[in-house]
This record gives sequence, structure tokens and C-alpha cells, in this order.
Amino acid sequence: MAVHRMLIEMAIQFEAKLVDIDAGAQHDPAYLKLNPAGHVPTLIVDGVPRHESVALLMLLAERHPEAALAPGSGSPDHPEWLETTVYLANTVLPATRDWFYASTDGDPAGALAVRALAERRIEAACAKLDTHFASGRADFLAVVLMRRWTRNMPRPALTWPHLADYIRRLRALPSFIDLNAREKLTEWRNEDD
Amino acid sequence: MAVHRMLIEMAIQFEAKLVDIDAGAQHDPAYLKLNPAGHVPTLIVDGVPRHESVALLMLLAERHPEAALAPGSGSPDHPEWLETTVYLANTVLPATRDWFYASTDGDPAGALAVRALAERRIEAACAKLDTHFASGRADFLAVVLMRRWTRNMPRPALTWPHLADYIRRLRALPSFIDLNAREKLTEWRNEDD
Repeated sequence: MAVHRMLIEMAIQFEAKLVDIDAGAQHDPAYLKLNPAGHVPTLIVDGVPRHESVALLMLLAERHPEAALAPGSGSPDHPEWLETTVYLANTVLPATRDWFYASTDGDPAGALAVRALAERRIEAACAKLDTHFASGRADFLAVVLMRRWTRNMPRPALTWPHLADYIRRLRALPSFIDLNAREKLTEWRNEDD
Repeated sequence: MAVHRMLIEMAIQFEAKLVDIDAGAQHDPAYLKLNPAGHVPTLIVDGVPRHESVALLMLLAERHPEAALAPGSGSPDHPEWLETTVYLANTVLPATRDWFYASTDGDPAGALAVRALAERRIEAACAKLDTHFASGRADFLAVVLMRRWTRNMPRPALTWPHLADYIRRLRALPSFIDLNAREKLTEWRNEDD
């Protein structure tokens, strides 16, 4: 969803193909040729299949500086952007993976313990991001991760006040509304869309 | 260790200060001012404390292209470098954290289950990296993560053949020998150093 949204936001020409995870299409031999780990998404760039959402977001930001969606390497804000991006990639993203996939990535008998740790980490991340966004900062990847966890977690992201403002602002953007339409998603929209 | 090594390898002028984790120095109020999460390392760049090892490695690579330690954004190898870096950051690094900190990051009662999943993920990563390094590729961060897990895991990284070649080659570098001397580390050296 993050990569799809960035492509739309940047007005890049692309072709989207659904990999139906619920139907197990990520394990189809044709898809595994493009992405041997069977993860989604894959972005074919200059004929080469590329993986890892966060790497794709960074690559798109570098290649399309005119979209001004990330501070470029010369900008004084660049080190902080790198730090936030890596934090989301190495702390928040794995915790959301644990939350949803504990019983298939690992032994189902241990899933409760894995999910309990994931929940603790995600709530700590919400508290940290709530402070971060209070200062007016914004982040693309963060909102997608919040969507991912907020719907099913005991304490949804919308219960942190600055996170909630931030989520409502981002969900009101035309590109987010368009993205939901393209992905046929109806959950987690602003009430007045 | 990865950031320290990169500073040495790049011949950058820096001052190193030990944060004695075993003694709990990462929770000292003075250190928490520099790094509110109490994580190591912190690198002060242009007077500003910066965090997240992987973000620091990327920042150093961008700012010191003359060291040629990473393919720059114009290089055809850049997308793959981004992908490998993000993979190490979001898959391998959190699993090594789980392995070592399961019982302090989370409920000690769940630590066995968390470590079992971490072990499964690290062994999958070893198999993947073993193939990756068989083609002659090299990665800075990977070797430090391998050091971290190889010493205490049921199946050490040195038991994968291409990983073992790679580790031996990297451990023979003068900068690695120098790094171990500076950090007063004696484990995980080549036998003939």
C-alpha cells in the first residue's frame, strides 16, 4: 500500500497487478520467480524485480526529487528522515509482521508470546510517533503501518491524540482516497469521505 | 560495532566514547539526553545526536562517496544495495535483537517462544546470505550481525560454507583487526591473527 500510494502521489506511470494474498497467490511459481521470498510488493524497475517496501520508497524518493516527498541527501532534514525511515523499518514494521503472522512464521504454540511482545513494541512506537507528529512532521510509511495495526490491535493508533490528527489529515488527501478506491478498500477511511 | 568500523574504514576523524552496556550506562540520564531510547550507538554529527545504526551507515556512505564503500545513488548497483540494507535492517537485525533481549524487551515467560521464532528467521537469513555471498558480494553490516548471532546460536554462521569464506576474508582486513583492538574484543577472530 505504501509503495502504491507513493507511485500515485508522484504521478509516475506504472501498471499495478494484484497479488491476492488471501488466495495464496504470493506462493504461485510465476510470482516466486519475481520474489523468491513470496513477499508483497515487487516493483519491476528498468526490467528488474525489486523488493522490500522501504527500499522501494527510498529508491522512488531518490529518483523523483521533483515530487519533494522526502528531504534529499543535501537537505539538513535528510539525516532525520533516514533515521525515521530506518526506525519504522526495523522496529515498527517487524512488530506488525509479528502481530499478523506469528502463527505462520513460527510455531503456533508460541504465537501468543510473540504477539504480546509485538503489542508492547507497537504501543511504545505509537507513543513515540505521537510526540513526533505533534511537532508537525509527517511520514508516508508511518500512516500505512498505522493502518495495518490500528484495525485489530487492543489499543488502536487513533487513540493517541496527535497520531489521530495526523491520520485524519492524511486520510483526507485525494491520493489516499484514490488509493483506497484502486485497492477496493473500505475500512479505515475518514467518516466523511 | 558496524558504525565504529565504518568510521575507521573511511578514515574519518572521530572521537569514540564507551557506553558500557553491561554496566547499564545506556540508562544514565546524560546518555538518555543524547539517545532517549537508551540504544547504542549514538553518533553526534554536526553537533546533533543521530541514532539507528543502519541510518548512520547510510548517512556515512552518502557523505563519503570517496571511500566507495557503498554504490552511490547513480550507480546501477544502488537499488540492490538499498534492498540488502533494508533486508538486514528489517529482518535480520530485529531477529538478533529478539534472540538477545526477548526476556527484557518482553515478558520473560514468553522468551522461549520469541527466541525460537528468532532462531528460525536467522537460519533462513543465513541460507539466503550464503547464496548472496557465493556470488562474490560483500556487506559491512552483514558481518557485524553475523558476529552478533554466530557466537551463541545453535547453528553458527560459520557453518554455512560461503558465509564462512566471507567471514574469514572480512575478519582478515586490517580495519577489522584494528576495530577489535580498539573495542578490546578477543572473541570471533581468525585463528591466525
